Amino acid sequence: MFITFEGIEGSGKSTAMRAVAETLQQRGHGVLLTREPGGSELGGVLRRILLDVATTDLAPEAELFLYLADRAQHVRQVIRPALAEDIVVLCDRYADSTVVYQGYGRSLDRTLLHQCNHMAVGGLWPDCTLLLDLEPHVGLTRALARNVAQAQAAREGRFEAESLDFHRRIREGYLTLAALHRERFRIIDASQPLERVVADCLTVVESLLSPQ
Amino acid sequence: MFITFEGIEGSGKSTAMRAVAETLQQRGHGVLLTREPGGSELGGVLRRILLDVATTDLAPEAELFLYLADRAQHVRQVIRPALAEDIVVLCDRYADSTVVYQGYGRSLDRTLLHQCNHMAVGGLWPDCTLLLDLEPHVGLTRALARNVAQAQAAREGRFEAESLDFHRRIREGYLTLAALHRERFRIIDASQPLERVVADCLTVVESLLSPQ
Repeated sequence: MFITFEGIEGSGKSTAMRAVAETLQQRGHGVLLTREPGGSELGGVLRRILLDVATTDLAPEAELFLYLADRAQHVRQVIRPALAEDIVVLCDRYADSTVVYQGYGRSLDRTLLHQCNHMAVGGLWPDCTLLLDLEPHVGLTRALARNVAQAQAAREGRFEAESLDFHRRIREGYLTLAALHRERFRIIDASQPLERVVADCLTVVESLLSPQ
Repeated sequence: MFITFEGIEGSGKSTAMRAVAETLQQRGHGVLLTREPGGSELGGVLRRILLDVATTDLAPEAELFLYLADRAQHVRQVIRPALAEDIVVLCDRYADSTVVYQGYGRSLDRTLLHQCNHMAVGGLWPDCTLLLDLEPHVGLTRALARNVAQAQAAREGRFEAESLDFHRRIREGYLTLAALHRERFRIIDASQPLERVVADCLTVVESLLSPQ
């Protein structure tokens, strides 16, 4: 079972993911929590380049290919081996993020993005994608508060620094993808209190693991 | 004027390129000598990952996207600005290397490689590509001798370590590309003594800069 978490900055993805992981582990499942960028050794190097606020003048096309390199390595070195051992893999961002951030956000050619993603994932698409949907101004307010609180997160603010309009295009992109791929997308209302968001995520994941 | 140098390891690209640069500079041209991977600040980081013999388990797809990221940044941050100032740009490897090494060498989908290259170069194709053509076993013997001689080069031996069959596919790929793009490719016989190789390169470059 391969489950990805998607959403704008501040939508609560990481928190919801950790809560889902804990619940699954308590029920005896092997769980791998991972993320993009940064899920492999190579990815760690690329994450520092991609998210560090000190990275300036990165061409949108270079940014795209760094995300794809991170993904290609992550799938082959980390995700596939875990799935082969029946471990439930929960991944914070995956191929949909590239379509949304580089396609809807940076206006790169979406057809080509899809083809590149196809090569990067090598046919591995998630069984389920939880989209934590939220108004961008709410998410950004949360993300900024977090960044002030956490020194490490503050270093990773390159996307939080984008305009509200950018983040609106991201949300629109996500909702479009969710409509196009209903077979695997589940939309979670991330404006709810966090415990409700977590509970909604758990309901979806449990229905996947124990289908009626 | 944008001129790229292509060829297998040990074909004498870098030496020929430096000799051409010196001659052009003596004649009053502004010249930029650059290379891929590694022509930009980001590229320096990526070059260490891509060519270091310590890099193992790099997925072919991840390798591809790192080269493309390097290229996208190099074109926008280094090559285009130099060309805009009428500087002659000489580049050691460019988009053709990706088609040849990742397509013919690693067997990735060549149509997709071409589309990715197209996005990476943003429409900037060389005015001329000098292909220093050589039997792979001659080139590899030279490259290995160089690697023993140079500590830094020895760290960059990831491709020299590939099989002779791999390098035969690379040469075949180059000759195929040269046949497909005769308008910009010039094949130089790199089995000649180095001074003849350099002289042949200079003849081509001079005919480009002072067309009859």
